[in-house]
Amino acid sequence: MSTGPRTQLLAILACAELSAVERLAEDATAAPSLADKVAVLSFARVQLDHYQLLADQIVADGVDPIVAMEPFSGPLAEFHAHTTPRTWEERMIKIYVGDALAADLYTELSSVLPAPLAELIRTVADDSDQREFARARVVAAVDAEPQLSGRLALWARRLVGEALSQAQRIVSDNDHLAELLTGTEESTGLDLAATAEMFTRLIQRHNERMAKVGLRP
Amino acid sequence: MSTGPRTQLLAILACAELSAVERLAEDATAAPSLADKVAVLSFARVQLDHYQLLADQIVADGVDPIVAMEPFSGPLAEFHAHTTPRTWEERMIKIYVGDALAADLYTELSSVLPAPLAELIRTVADDSDQREFARARVVAAVDAEPQLSGRLALWARRLVGEALSQAQRIVSDNDHLAELLTGTEESTGLDLAATAEMFTRLIQRHNERMAKVGLRP
Repeated sequence: MSTGPRTQLLAILACAELSAVERLAEDATAAPSLADKVAVLSFARVQLDHYQLLADQIVADGVDPIVAMEPFSGPLAEFHAHTTPRTWEERMIKIYVGDALAADLYTELSSVLPAPLAELIRTVADDSDQREFARARVVAAVDAEPQLSGRLALWARRLVGEALSQAQRIVSDNDHLAELLTGTEESTGLDLAATAEMFTRLIQRHNERMAKVGLRP
Repeated sequence: MSTGPRTQLLAILACAELSAVERLAEDATAAPSLADKVAVLSFARVQLDHYQLLADQIVADGVDPIVAMEPFSGPLAEFHAHTTPRTWEERMIKIYVGDALAADLYTELSSVLPAPLAELIRTVADDSDQREFARARVVAAVDAEPQLSGRLALWARRLVGEALSQAQRIVSDNDHLAELLTGTEESTGLDLAATAEMFTRLIQRHNERMAKVGLRP
């Protein structure tokens, strides 16, 4: 059973969805109200549906999703272990920053992938309800307590740093993913310069999002 | 906005489903393998679907599910706070014992409820995949380490004790539920003797389940 670049990419995304579900369930337990708990668990349900879409495609590739995801569960668990929120506001920043960053990354990748895969990836990247919920909570928290903004801005920078460092580790540990980025027979890929430009765009958009909720990038 | 007995019962079940999702997500995080994690999260997805069925019915009663669930979230959170598993085996016992007990209770209740509600309750009580998964894990754990059985049997007794004590608290704090048990205009209900018999049957079935996995009731 060999896993090609397509399967590897699907497996990372599937593993990230599961990891998001676990994190959202923790957020639900820490939620300040039952309404927040219900909202957050409804986002978990969306992520579980996305997981299923991805797992079905891995099965269609003839690979057991568990086997395919195994190499990625470590780095993802490590990312979450290094970025455990201490407050509800930190949880909301993690959703707002993390999901948007992931969605931007997936959208960038989908531009160099074959059409059906690109479309699936755009579908699972669409967590706009969840992001909007978290954005509104962050804005309300900073409005109510402006001195929070320094700590939350620092937290957001730490999240981005950890995310990029684990992403780099995942790509360098998995040959096929590097291939996906630099081109395969099915797609032209991104050369090194294009990859650097892509990361610049990701950071740029992240900074714009920070400014939008009144936090210093 | 007044909540009748039907809405109260739906709200308890809905709140219990949400609480089960949170607990399953914790189990997923503690899972000894990625396969166990995926299995447990797939059970969480089933519970979220059950929650949605119940919430839709609460909305059909003209009540906001959040408002309806509010009185029950405390006792359920307290039940889980008093029964936090320390090991994977304790988690599996909690699923095996707790879900089966809840399912038996729901089935008993559905016998005195009007048909459409009874059917919905039988649907949300059907967690047989999850229960079978947990049962197999308990059996394997006790086979591998027979000296576990004393501790797990004690744990199971504590779970049942806590569950019955919170159930009693919920019924006595909510008039409409007592009404449901003792009869409403729509149903004949259970008189006190019948209620006592019902609890005897629940404990009897629990004891049989314990014996089935080789644990002393």
